[in-house]
Amino acid sequence: MSDPSYAVGLDFGTESGRAVLLDCRSGDVLASSAVRYPSAVIDRTLPSSGEELPGDWALQDPDDWVTVIERAVPQVLEEAGVPAEAVVGLGIDFTSCTVLPVTSEGVPLCTLEEWRDRRHAWPKLWKHHAAQPVADRLTEVALEREEGFLSRYGGRISSEWYFPKLIEVWLEDREVYDACAAFIEATDWVVWWLTGTECRQTATAGFKAMWSPEDGLPSTEYFEAAYPGFDQPGEKLGERFVPLGSKAGPLRAEVAKKTGLPETTAVAVGNVDAWVSVPGVGVEDPGTFVIVIGTSICDMIVHPEETRLPGITGVVKDGILPGQYGYEAGQAAVGDMLAWFVEQVAQDPGSYGELEKGAAALQPGETGLVAFDWWNGNRTILGDADVTGAILGLTLQSTREQIYRALLESIAFGSRRIMDNFEEHGLVLSEIVACGGIAERSPLMMQLLADTSGRRVHVPEVQEIPARGAALFGAVAAGVYDDIASAITATRPERVRTYEPDLEAKRTYDRVYEIYRTLYDYLGRSEVRLLHELKRIRVERRGG
Amino acid sequence: MSDPSYAVGLDFGTESGRAVLLDCRSGDVLASSAVRYPSAVIDRTLPSSGEELPGDWALQDPDDWVTVIERAVPQVLEEAGVPAEAVVGLGIDFTSCTVLPVTSEGVPLCTLEEWRDRRHAWPKLWKHHAAQPVADRLTEVALEREEGFLSRYGGRISSEWYFPKLIEVWLEDREVYDACAAFIEATDWVVWWLTGTECRQTATAGFKAMWSPEDGLPSTEYFEAAYPGFDQPGEKLGERFVPLGSKAGPLRAEVAKKTGLPETTAVAVGNVDAWVSVPGVGVEDPGTFVIVIGTSICDMIVHPEETRLPGITGVVKDGILPGQYGYEAGQAAVGDMLAWFVEQVAQDPGSYGELEKGAAALQPGETGLVAFDWWNGNRTILGDADVTGAILGLTLQSTREQIYRALLESIAFGSRRIMDNFEEHGLVLSEIVACGGIAERSPLMMQLLADTSGRRVHVPEVQEIPARGAALFGAVAAGVYDDIASAITATRPERVRTYEPDLEAKRTYDRVYEIYRTLYDYLGRSEVRLLHELKRIRVERRGG
Repeated sequence: MSDPSYAVGLDFGTESGRAVLLDCRSGDVLASSAVRYPSAVIDRTLPSSGEELPGDWALQDPDDWVTVIERAVPQVLEEAGVPAEAVVGLGIDFTSCTVLPVTSEGVPLCTLEEWRDRRHAWPKLWKHHAAQPVADRLTEVALEREEGFLSRYGGRISSEWYFPKLIEVWLEDREVYDACAAFIEATDWVVWWLTGTECRQTATAGFKAMWSPEDGLPSTEYFEAAYPGFDQPGEKLGERFVPLGSKAGPLRAEVAKKTGLPETTAVAVGNVDAWVSVPGVGVEDPGTFVIVIGTSICDMIVHPEETRLPGITGVVKDGILPGQYGYEAGQAAVGDMLAWFVEQVAQDPGSYGELEKGAAALQPGETGLVAFDWWNGNRTILGDADVTGAILGLTLQSTREQIYRALLESIAFGSRRIMDNFEEHGLVLSEIVACGGIAERSPLMMQLLADTSGRRVHVPEVQEIPARGAALFGAVAAGVYDDIASAITATRPERVRTYEPDLEAKRTYDRVYEIYRTLYDYLGRSEVRLLHELKRIRVERRGG
Repeated sequence: MSDPSYAVGLDFGTESGRAVLLDCRSGDVLASSAVRYPSAVIDRTLPSSGEELPGDWALQDPDDWVTVIERAVPQVLEEAGVPAEAVVGLGIDFTSCTVLPVTSEGVPLCTLEEWRDRRHAWPKLWKHHAAQPVADRLTEVALEREEGFLSRYGGRISSEWYFPKLIEVWLEDREVYDACAAFIEATDWVVWWLTGTECRQTATAGFKAMWSPEDGLPSTEYFEAAYPGFDQPGEKLGERFVPLGSKAGPLRAEVAKKTGLPETTAVAVGNVDAWVSVPGVGVEDPGTFVIVIGTSICDMIVHPEETRLPGITGVVKDGILPGQYGYEAGQAAVGDMLAWFVEQVAQDPGSYGELEKGAAALQPGETGLVAFDWWNGNRTILGDADVTGAILGLTLQSTREQIYRALLESIAFGSRRIMDNFEEHGLVLSEIVACGGIAERSPLMMQLLADTSGRRVHVPEVQEIPARGAALFGAVAAGVYDDIASAITATRPERVRTYEPDLEAKRTYDRVYEIYRTLYDYLGRSEVRLLHELKRIRVERRGG
């Protein structure tokens, strides 16, 4: 490690992608460059034909991903001013489960003249929710058959996952289904494009395709019971998956030429945007609860033991860090909900700062309000897309700032509820590490996470966390570090802002949380039919 | 009735008073004049001493009431241009229970040098809530002793009523208590001032002082059990009460001179602002639900039979119209709550029209929201000042207009809940008559009352309804009509805007109302401790 060496991290989000250049020794990000996808999220009309897309559809264009690589990589090389030949590794992360049908050569079907007018030929973005009926059917049959795999996923299969999206193609466009050699996670497809080698990793297989190293995929009998005739579940997915941190191969010559990277650059197997934040913020120890808090929240913990518990998104071996069980949970509306309040209710997009300041001047409990952040359903614990948000305790004296604070508190209570769920099932959580846009922008939100949970909250002062985490995997693939744990230890961010829990605030919040939990169980569970019926009426009336 | 004759109506509100001049034959209001009280509501410092008032205190200055009479009456006489000698009667209405201590000559203690620095010497406005502990104690003891009178008041004594306010004086300033010859409703005091004759009426005695023609006042034993030593409950109240519509006397010469009215003007006994709206809008029949909808809602019905039922403010014989049982109920935050949304949340006082328009363009059920209008507690059915408002069903797609509509719907559901309560106890309600500021300004609110309840809503197109109703009692006192029923029949407003219930809307609202009722019982009754605890925490933290 005496010579300088560098790694590229590529981070593919929902609206844009970015590249960073990382100094492998220090872990410092030397340069970064973001590129917006020219076609953005495709959710209204199909670009090829102009066909109107049904509701709940969300697609992407793979050419946009290539554009990101071809533009952003040369830019970071130039900006950092390091010799290109000193770049040794490259790692990527992508949204998940974003999946696309490709030929046996890895060519996306939607880029071929023959298929580009077929909407099922395009990549389905993670938030494509049109396969909800398939997901419901798969959950139902798994429950009926008492399938053991279901308990790894908190008891529920999401419409965002691999098989709902694949079976949707199988049901609705059998020609596309038959024409594709593979139906592949975009993260794995990018690696294929970079290296010329198909190489799928264990993490998305585990979290999104119900695969596990011990049991493989759910049985053919299970799929046949749900969808008679769907009898080759592994046909488009493959059955061989390699661990995170593995090297997929060197760069293709053509890619090297276009990007200016050396052909020797070691490309790590694909990864997922939320999960790479764990190494990105320097976490590798069990007991640390990592919260990526932005538009929504993704929570992650790693632990040497497997505990199957309800109310999580999943627990997967090697799913976040190799050698550990990765646990995922989350909250569906966070920054989204705050933006809704500021833009739709207050109608004053410039008022964030003022609202945060006003809210911060209030005492815990002083709002007299309690809110449920179910503006976009509840991802975990309830796993229910049809519950909706609530604010209780309103009076003529309630102010905008009080409501804003109550929304922040609802996010904090939601997080505490999730942490309580882990602890009630034996997973001790000692500290919180938070990152993402809101961790940087809202000290009040961080203090509330500390005060409601009684745990220290650490916010590492480091930029471009997911891309940084991806680059660390690139450094591991290049052999700069023996494994990701060594890479994390060597590059752990030095500057960390820590929020200490205020114990008096905690005592007050414990009282409010008691109220919250009781209402949570009533509105979200025992009488959840009330919120469901409210939504049903709304949907019927809007349709009519 | 061949000669033209006129009556004056005087309406004393919370912030201002007004006079109208009524043509007794047609019922037309020929002129009106409003005067703001120079001292407004006294709720911060005592005008005489500058002493800071405790929270929940609200006083008025009796000189302000005199100012209204001396200014507004000459103005309406002049504006109408009718000969003063043709004015035959005068009626007044006042907020209630607004009460003051006076000497045996009817001089308010607070106008005397000796007493004016004592806060208990001043008139306590209806919304003076500092006697809440007394009210709670009186309710508690009435329940313990199974006092029969309590069932006339829905099971609860309000802090706004006569005895809580009187006992507050007795407890906190015995000198003022001993010094006053009488503690009197402001409505009766104004009549005393106008005529020189003390003449208290049955209506406030019944609704606010727990008196009834059959049983008189609650027993001395009851009061002694609650407050040992308080053994002369009738001492400051008197025990003789005359029916509404009676003549108290002619005008004092001095008043006649100052106002320009003839000394022969017959002055009717006092009345209350909400109740005079019943004759004011032309209602005298059982089965009509009168809603006065403004800052808050006061609901009234008259019926020949007495039914004691929970969840009302009171049922009093001769309480609204002589010869009938008057029932009162209400909602605590209505216009107040809408103003809160427009001013505090939207922060755009000019947006009422836009919000009403946007809300009116939505379908029933389309908001997906359900709200509880408990922003200022719940007056009836719950009679609980400590419950607070709620909005459920919020999503990222919820709009300002949807929330505004949900607030209007919460008012309509609150009214339906009250009507259901009457009907569940055998009082059939066929139609609704609405008046007040919101009845005039919000066609959507009126349509929602119709659509949620399935009843026609009539809005009489007539101005200055309470003052008009007061003037009708003046006309009866003058003998222009034999009784108030004849006066109502003769002057019933001709122009009425009627809102027909839409049955399809009703079917949708029945489904939402099912959800509303279930949540109402949960949040307001079975688990009311949740909202109470939330408020308790708020109060503690604001104090701290």
